Amino acid sequence: MNRSPWTQARRAARMNPSIIREILKVTEKPGVLSMAGGLPSADTFPVEAIKAACDRVLTHNAREALQYAASEGFAPLREWVAAKVEGLGMRVSPDQVLITSGSQQGLDLVGKLLCDAGAPVAVETPTYLGALQAFTPYEPIFASLASDDEGPLPSAIEALPHDAPGTRFAYLLPNYQNPTGRVMSAQRREAVVAAARKAGVPVVEDNPYGDLWFDQAPPAALSSLWPEGSIYLGSFSKVLTPGFRLGYIVAPSEVYPKLLQAKQAADLHTPGFNQRVVHEVIKGGFLDEHVPKIRARYKANRDAMAKALAQSLPPGCEWQSPEGGMFFWIRLPEGLDAMTLLPRAVDAGIAYVPGAAFYAHQPDPRTLRLSFVTLTPELIAEGVDKLGRMLHEALALTTAETTP
Amino acid sequence: MNRSPWTQARRAARMNPSIIREILKVTEKPGVLSMAGGLPSADTFPVEAIKAACDRVLTHNAREALQYAASEGFAPLREWVAAKVEGLGMRVSPDQVLITSGSQQGLDLVGKLLCDAGAPVAVETPTYLGALQAFTPYEPIFASLASDDEGPLPSAIEALPHDAPGTRFAYLLPNYQNPTGRVMSAQRREAVVAAARKAGVPVVEDNPYGDLWFDQAPPAALSSLWPEGSIYLGSFSKVLTPGFRLGYIVAPSEVYPKLLQAKQAADLHTPGFNQRVVHEVIKGGFLDEHVPKIRARYKANRDAMAKALAQSLPPGCEWQSPEGGMFFWIRLPEGLDAMTLLPRAVDAGIAYVPGAAFYAHQPDPRTLRLSFVTLTPELIAEGVDKLGRMLHEALALTTAETTP
Repeated sequence: MNRSPWTQARRAARMNPSIIREILKVTEKPGVLSMAGGLPSADTFPVEAIKAACDRVLTHNAREALQYAASEGFAPLREWVAAKVEGLGMRVSPDQVLITSGSQQGLDLVGKLLCDAGAPVAVETPTYLGALQAFTPYEPIFASLASDDEGPLPSAIEALPHDAPGTRFAYLLPNYQNPTGRVMSAQRREAVVAAARKAGVPVVEDNPYGDLWFDQAPPAALSSLWPEGSIYLGSFSKVLTPGFRLGYIVAPSEVYPKLLQAKQAADLHTPGFNQRVVHEVIKGGFLDEHVPKIRARYKANRDAMAKALAQSLPPGCEWQSPEGGMFFWIRLPEGLDAMTLLPRAVDAGIAYVPGAAFYAHQPDPRTLRLSFVTLTPELIAEGVDKLGRMLHEALALTTAETTP
Repeated sequence: MNRSPWTQARRAARMNPSIIREILKVTEKPGVLSMAGGLPSADTFPVEAIKAACDRVLTHNAREALQYAASEGFAPLREWVAAKVEGLGMRVSPDQVLITSGSQQGLDLVGKLLCDAGAPVAVETPTYLGALQAFTPYEPIFASLASDDEGPLPSAIEALPHDAPGTRFAYLLPNYQNPTGRVMSAQRREAVVAAARKAGVPVVEDNPYGDLWFDQAPPAALSSLWPEGSIYLGSFSKVLTPGFRLGYIVAPSEVYPKLLQAKQAADLHTPGFNQRVVHEVIKGGFLDEHVPKIRARYKANRDAMAKALAQSLPPGCEWQSPEGGMFFWIRLPEGLDAMTLLPRAVDAGIAYVPGAAFYAHQPDPRTLRLSFVTLTPELIAEGVDKLGRMLHEALALTTAETTP
């Protein structure tokens, strides 16, 4: 028979190549200064500490580290996480901690457990693209929450549908959100959680950037305000290394056993070796000295980009200086489209991610995301200068076109 | 409000604790000789080679190994896999290789891509429990294929429903299957693939045990007989270490991009560090010397268990001596139930897995699985002797009960 044996499953039809992947492919050219990727600076990876930890784990615990392991994760690492999130106002038992293969897997497990075909999932406007990708195979309907500079509006959460099939959860990023860099104030957190509670909509709180604050730590976690109604996702990718793929979920006891089952079905367990090595690195307080160095480095980069943007960008561009994290979010003047301009940017020797990729609905074509952590301050200045020139030219053309 | 904010999603309702997990909990008692687990022998882990490889990777390629990496996997490892499966009769490009977080993740990605709610997926009778767990969240209907000592019957595959919604795929384990230890003959492979082709049902071939043959290598892979209609899953867990969680998918070019997208949504990528370390260990032909040692060791264990079973088990028990892999599959005499007997086995100081866990439908309560790779030959003899005594006693009781 000639027809393909691969049936076009409904689910498969929904899965499409990542826009960012395609963008990164286009922008990865020699000589291009890329502010597109979301990569932490490789200069911050504590190579020697990791090397020593690998050696110790393989000298003292090789048989356990190289064998199959518990789906919940390495017990001392779970204890470490439980103690760590206490600093965010959360009081949890290590039994509520599930170690995941990066926090991206946490998103997948949440989707696998809580999404049903046709049931709404609420997301911020805009939101983390990887979350949209993680939830999509489970066929939810996305509800985009109206949002401002402080995050989603409580009124938008209160208005979520709670009749059957009911909104499954609200996916929220309170700290230095990817892509906007925005942070929720303490007041907004309380209002958002109160609204979610009132609407009976659980909160899935994603916090990969929370440790990367510059002047002051962000307010307490959303999960601290409504422990029984919140799932919290954390990560070691931004404070230690993404290459070990280590994250964690903190979940209420009511939900934990099902998440654990989803985890076991997904990959049995996160590599025991990686968990032991990371625990070996951090157990003596390593991050207390290491993370401030990352903060200082990223803050200097943020300052360099803030200065360069103010100097170079044409009038009509809007942005806020982020108080942490890795990204600036720029809104271009009326008439400019960040996706359309990307090839010109690459020709000019720089790259960014058009913001349209981060919207579940009605993308704002004027937005773009710039990372300030991959390049040095000098190269940031150079890159933003090139971006500014390109935008000035584009704006001149637009004006020329629209002027009779 | 008082009701729980966690809606009982339809999907979540299908996810239940693993039976094996529960069994292992019950059987993990001090002094119990466990033949229950599916763990490779920790004595086979090449600790020194791994330690040296970690050191080399962190000395020469730390920045790349610790950074985010490509979702497809580490290119030299993908090339190694493409060359490796040539030995199974498969001619594939490295572009068709996707590195996964263990082959369990391969199962999850296959489910995520190909399963639709209510569409049939064909499985062997019995089959690997972890696959049932991986596919279940995607809500398929399982079709159990009538099977004999050589695997599923071609006639059962031909009879699969191919009208809408159509059987999505047949999940097959040709080599030393978990749990039965059976291997498909070359003739059966051809008949099974011909039947699948005729029925228009793709094959998902899972081969974690194929390298663990004792006297002769198994016949060519199913995927070699129908490359465009087969997805192949492989693993480093049984030949190197499970603790690094490394497996791979080989997929036709038609399907690969969607699997890649599913992988990216699931965990972005498998740890680059782990991939580089494993490639560093194996690139110079390490497995050519290492795997024969595992084979020799496991063969001696198989022989010890075969001898002990012949000596100790009561008449009416049935089994075949496996030609590779890790498991014996025993069928008890009429009237005995392996699940019911498990607490008595644990009291007697031994543990096995009741076979009922491995059936999608109509479990055979008389079956049980014994691993022969975790214990030494001496302890295998002791364990099987205890199992035999327990079964003799149980049988005597059954006979007493049924004799008026």
